[in-house]
Amino acid sequence: MTNLQTEDFSKWYLQTIQQAELMSYSEVRGCIVFRPDGFELWERIQQEVNRYLQSEDIRNVYFPMLIPKSYFMKEAEHVEGFAPELPWVTEVGNEKLEEPYALRPTSETMIGQSFHEWIKSYRDLPYEINQWANVFRWEKKTLPFLRTSEFLWHEGHTAHANEADARKRTLHVLNFYVELLEKFLAIPVYVGKKTPSERFAGAVDTYSVEAMMQDGKAVQAGTSHYLGTKFAEAFDIRFLNQKNQHTLVHTTSWAVSTRLIGSLIMVHGDEQGLVLPPKIAPTQVILIPVGPYKKEPKILTKLNELKEQLKTVGIRVRLDDSDNTAGFKFNKWEQKGAVVQLELGPRDLVKNSITLKMRDLTEKETVSLEQLVPTIEKYMNDMQQRLLEKARQRATSNEYTNIQTLQELKDHIKNCRETKKTPGFVLIGWDGSTETEAIIKAETGFTTRIIPFQAPVEKEFDLVSGKPAKYTVWIARAY
Amino acid sequence: MTNLQTEDFSKWYLQTIQQAELMSYSEVRGCIVFRPDGFELWERIQQEVNRYLQSEDIRNVYFPMLIPKSYFMKEAEHVEGFAPELPWVTEVGNEKLEEPYALRPTSETMIGQSFHEWIKSYRDLPYEINQWANVFRWEKKTLPFLRTSEFLWHEGHTAHANEADARKRTLHVLNFYVELLEKFLAIPVYVGKKTPSERFAGAVDTYSVEAMMQDGKAVQAGTSHYLGTKFAEAFDIRFLNQKNQHTLVHTTSWAVSTRLIGSLIMVHGDEQGLVLPPKIAPTQVILIPVGPYKKEPKILTKLNELKEQLKTVGIRVRLDDSDNTAGFKFNKWEQKGAVVQLELGPRDLVKNSITLKMRDLTEKETVSLEQLVPTIEKYMNDMQQRLLEKARQRATSNEYTNIQTLQELKDHIKNCRETKKTPGFVLIGWDGSTETEAIIKAETGFTTRIIPFQAPVEKEFDLVSGKPAKYTVWIARAY
Repeated sequence: MTNLQTEDFSKWYLQTIQQAELMSYSEVRGCIVFRPDGFELWERIQQEVNRYLQSEDIRNVYFPMLIPKSYFMKEAEHVEGFAPELPWVTEVGNEKLEEPYALRPTSETMIGQSFHEWIKSYRDLPYEINQWANVFRWEKKTLPFLRTSEFLWHEGHTAHANEADARKRTLHVLNFYVELLEKFLAIPVYVGKKTPSERFAGAVDTYSVEAMMQDGKAVQAGTSHYLGTKFAEAFDIRFLNQKNQHTLVHTTSWAVSTRLIGSLIMVHGDEQGLVLPPKIAPTQVILIPVGPYKKEPKILTKLNELKEQLKTVGIRVRLDDSDNTAGFKFNKWEQKGAVVQLELGPRDLVKNSITLKMRDLTEKETVSLEQLVPTIEKYMNDMQQRLLEKARQRATSNEYTNIQTLQELKDHIKNCRETKKTPGFVLIGWDGSTETEAIIKAETGFTTRIIPFQAPVEKEFDLVSGKPAKYTVWIARAY
Repeated sequence: MTNLQTEDFSKWYLQTIQQAELMSYSEVRGCIVFRPDGFELWERIQQEVNRYLQSEDIRNVYFPMLIPKSYFMKEAEHVEGFAPELPWVTEVGNEKLEEPYALRPTSETMIGQSFHEWIKSYRDLPYEINQWANVFRWEKKTLPFLRTSEFLWHEGHTAHANEADARKRTLHVLNFYVELLEKFLAIPVYVGKKTPSERFAGAVDTYSVEAMMQDGKAVQAGTSHYLGTKFAEAFDIRFLNQKNQHTLVHTTSWAVSTRLIGSLIMVHGDEQGLVLPPKIAPTQVILIPVGPYKKEPKILTKLNELKEQLKTVGIRVRLDDSDNTAGFKFNKWEQKGAVVQLELGPRDLVKNSITLKMRDLTEKETVSLEQLVPTIEKYMNDMQQRLLEKARQRATSNEYTNIQTLQELKDHIKNCRETKKTPGFVLIGWDGSTETEAIIKAETGFTTRIIPFQAPVEKEFDLVSGKPAKYTVWIARAY
């Protein structure tokens, strides 16, 4: 039997997210519809991010989506980075606007203008806010969740009295993103700093958490930027310090987006469909009646009882009492990534037990109804750990740290293609030149992902130039 | 002393929302920035709406913000109603788009297209979803929160097998809106049906909850529409019924928006600033140290203890230990609508008590620290009731039900202007003609608000034509 997931990962992905009813296509170029199960994944991520924000006393705000053209012009690198992807509102009703508005690709400029107005004194600092918003980047190639013309994200923006405080926030958020991905989404990450060519347009330093998909490609899953005084200069954001001097603030910004949904599917999904970490799954338990349950109303009565019982302890449970066959239901809920599948038939009822199957395991098990709640809770915890461990092992086995030259990299890629393996993440030495990055990209499609905080080994020589390496860098193909 | 609120209500409103730091102006025409305290009001409304949606098993989704021009063209009344206010995206980067996209003013068309794809059989019905989104209506006159070019709202969209089911949902939501306004926002409402001229563009029937501001003007605070089969026809939304016939669905849509924030301020605010119902107030308790508290560190220690204690029982509490004077703080937190103000000084400490003042009352009271939590909880409940009652009495005293002719209406308005009273809500008889509505509007600025479900009296004759009245209608000036 062919395995679509290994044969054609892209096709598998597109099929999986549609069968699971996470999204639909729309007729708007590169924009998708987030259906209930897709949007709920986002809502659960939002809850986790809001929890962090609240614990840090960072409050939510909302800024206008339309950005005057003149705002973009104020920070040169910023406008250069975003200009080609900006949709413009030029007319209202039948009238041309004097100054066109861009649909925001990010809000540094808009928020910079407000920081200019709000921040007066050192007493106002740090000034830390967050926005949940839709943003727009009209990219050439789009892919549901991972790269869409409109996407949803949160963007944190902070201003500080000095560089040290600003850098502290940048890294504190980065650490939160590591936790969010590893503990909540069960996605192991690679953490570090971006090279200048991959930096956010207008940042001094961009830090990123990168995740490896099952096809070995990378997703930049969350970024945190130290912006220095660049936006403070562009928007004249100054405060009166304790010596009564007007001083530029140091700003940061950071974001995770609905890309995370795509990563979640690509990291955990299997041939049968979605596999979701229990902490985020919209359906944690699916109850399915089996056997001649229409003749034995006791079965549905019992299932409804169980449903209420599980709800009471906070488990997200659904009962599928539709007219479909049990086989159809098993398949459907497997596609949708229901975590625990419980079947109840006449024989179970007699024994006061139920048949349980975890989504990521193959075996079924009989559980006594008395033990049901603690068993489910334990099994869900176990599965959450198991998924992270499995993803970590897979990632580790797709790391290549012994490649020394461009030729070796090419051979590696060729060899992987022939043996149907993924070329994964490759650790290389880098002399810090953009030439090296450009040559690697042109010849292999690999891009520099991050300079990791902790490299498994330190590389001595640049992959391309052979010069002494200044940095050790992860490179990979990326979404 | 002049009273700005009664002298110049608009000026008072604009001053109040800025002093309370709910919003800032932006350079984008008619768009505002929602600052933390302003946005938190919206977040608390969101929680209440989400609670309703969840209890009704209506799930959240997200649709593209950009709507292809051709979609609007499909429902004639709809496009006619919205066309003049639509901002258009015509370019991306430097390239002209083949078909322009509108920024959504509402999503019936976008969602209609998806309903067409998703709904196949009677088993899929009712199909009920909700979206939280930013929407755009480029109106001539704007006012922060109440009428902005971009605003935030939720929009529910449902499809049903028949008219009865669709109408049931329309009214069920309307009842929820009544509850939301009266029980949560402490805003008494007038409930009923809109006249055809005030209907949502494309609706068969529009129902509305209307609220009376302190200047007697109306705000349409929430609407629920029965759309019949109009959008089903435009987007070919059909299902296979139990007799195997392809049948048009009946759809509904309904919304409340960030207008509610404006209403909240205009209904409850006073000369000192914001007055907020305890259930929604971002700051329920403000703790303020008084006397020489810097020399007596015990005071701040105690206040920090109290803060933790109040937090633990779920009260939203802040401690103002800034360098400002106590007088400055009292004033500031009054402006911001903090519900309960607690001052602690050396004398209170000795007596193990604290000085309490409710935002809407003038007297201070001493409360023993042992009794603090139950006292606050009781007082907040009392205030929640009190605000609703006060607003209801004010509204009732500004209802005019004895005006029979256009001349009497004009006299009433003139008389109110001279005595500095608000002309309020006027109950009139209406023969059902658009002429009557047009004449009233042209000559007095009053518009038909609703045909109430329960009129205090039934009117016999049309205000303008003198013909027998078909309906009894509330008219008022409106925001």
